[in-house]
Amino acid sequence: VRTDLQRGDDGNLRVVLDWGTTSLRAFLVDASGAILDRVETADGIRTVAGRGFAGIVARVLAPWREDHGSLSILAAGMIGSRNGWVEVPYVDTPAGASDLAAAVRTKSLQGGGTITFFPGLIDRSARPFPDVMRGEETQLVGLGLDQDATVVLPGTHSKWARIEDGRITRFCTFATGEVFATMTDHSFLAHVAKRPAKLDWRAFARGLDVVRAQDGSAGLLSRIFTVRTGWLAGAIDPSEMVDYLSGIVVGCEFAEAAAQGWHDGGVVTIVGGDDIAQVYRTVAEKFGLSVSLGPENAALIGCLRIAAELPRD
Amino acid sequence: VRTDLQRGDDGNLRVVLDWGTTSLRAFLVDASGAILDRVETADGIRTVAGRGFAGIVARVLAPWREDHGSLSILAAGMIGSRNGWVEVPYVDTPAGASDLAAAVRTKSLQGGGTITFFPGLIDRSARPFPDVMRGEETQLVGLGLDQDATVVLPGTHSKWARIEDGRITRFCTFATGEVFATMTDHSFLAHVAKRPAKLDWRAFARGLDVVRAQDGSAGLLSRIFTVRTGWLAGAIDPSEMVDYLSGIVVGCEFAEAAAQGWHDGGVVTIVGGDDIAQVYRTVAEKFGLSVSLGPENAALIGCLRIAAELPRD
Repeated sequence: VRTDLQRGDDGNLRVVLDWGTTSLRAFLVDASGAILDRVETADGIRTVAGRGFAGIVARVLAPWREDHGSLSILAAGMIGSRNGWVEVPYVDTPAGASDLAAAVRTKSLQGGGTITFFPGLIDRSARPFPDVMRGEETQLVGLGLDQDATVVLPGTHSKWARIEDGRITRFCTFATGEVFATMTDHSFLAHVAKRPAKLDWRAFARGLDVVRAQDGSAGLLSRIFTVRTGWLAGAIDPSEMVDYLSGIVVGCEFAEAAAQGWHDGGVVTIVGGDDIAQVYRTVAEKFGLSVSLGPENAALIGCLRIAAELPRD
Repeated sequence: VRTDLQRGDDGNLRVVLDWGTTSLRAFLVDASGAILDRVETADGIRTVAGRGFAGIVARVLAPWREDHGSLSILAAGMIGSRNGWVEVPYVDTPAGASDLAAAVRTKSLQGGGTITFFPGLIDRSARPFPDVMRGEETQLVGLGLDQDATVVLPGTHSKWARIEDGRITRFCTFATGEVFATMTDHSFLAHVAKRPAKLDWRAFARGLDVVRAQDGSAGLLSRIFTVRTGWLAGAIDPSEMVDYLSGIVVGCEFAEAAAQGWHDGGVVTIVGGDDIAQVYRTVAEKFGLSVSLGPENAALIGCLRIAAELPRD
């Protein structure tokens, strides 16, 4: 692809960074938003020692800069957080792409070029404390805010968000992925469970059914213990424990979301990587919801849409 | 105390072992059940390599045996589990002291004396799998089964149990302590939280209030994330995070127990060590329950009561 490029096009090339806690994804895109090249590294903000973010950028972008000179960079995700490179204050809900664009922070880089950090979003109507997101708002903009929707963004900290009248109006976070991973790696399971090479859908569905069978009384604390009682009863094999637990935890997310009024038999849109989106689709359908899937590259699309709203300098 | 003993009393002395996953508590008791000596070690069944249980007993009891000869030993707790020394099958609910006594397994020790392992309890009415306890049934017998009661036994795997007509009729396990410890040590909290030297009651109460304010919709997955949003909002100090989380998790245990019909404004009896019992008492009272506290040495009393029902040989 890169061989098609004319030297004269370089001014329209940009780099988009999706820079989170555990990984860095970088995209080289042209003016139309087409991806010319991409790279992914494990340089998440948690692992970058001494905050050597500029060094990471220099290293990761070196091949592109060699071909195309200093490139302007857009950066979304936790890189703009308190523990990141430049803290960009949160924008209040309700907010759309132009509200996010109005709050960016831009920094000049040694050796030329600039890096523009996107803000996160804060929902001050959440109780007991304002809820926050950083990165998911870009995915929501990438999905598109033109249609009202209830959107689920699965992850370590899963988000449920409402899009109304062209803006993100409110959202709620569930620590689903974190509880799942932490319990898998460090609880009683860790001594017994065998990790399957790929998702065991049957085991997952059994965990999910435990939650669905009990609706309102479905509590995570007692359900988690059924991983152990199922094993002791010979009903759950060590190779099934992890996916059975996953079914319970994701099922509890949907049960909690229902109890909080996030869904009630309507349509939800799921935005995320292919694997996790399929898992959440299955759960949503089991809960009687109709599912629409967002684009997998929603973060990138969202970055470009927010960038299009940036004031020209 | 030991100087009061006459050599001729030795035949009436016994050792009671409360041998769990992470610790071993041994008591030397006389015929009346009075404690003559006690010792606690970190030789929990998880840490005893190569299942060298006999060696542990020989080492821990050596001083007592030197004074009193080979002693008969009663052993309760996880030592009688699949991962313990001798697996003693579970007794079905409903069960009382005599049902437990009828199911013990006795083993002769090299060098003389015997060790008697108590069974655990299984509630086959629990869904989706039979629930199990091993050790707590002894505490329940120690509390006394003569009065109907709803009993809470806080711990890594907290138990709620019903005593009816002189027997333990059913129970349910909540993985409260395990979720709390695992999240404290390995989640996003671990990077930020400062561990307080002692329980910060105010922080604990704030976590508890978050659960109580939301009753039926109180879900653990979204509440856990408020530890982070509270910190980001400057409302929760790093030194308050652990106890705030504790309030949330224990509060969720009571909310789940209520949803499952375990309590509804009546009386609960709490059986456990002094510190944790006080924490649970506070929570129970916040949930409008009247609290009765069981004896702190319920496990020991229970062992002796079960032993009193053993067939004479």
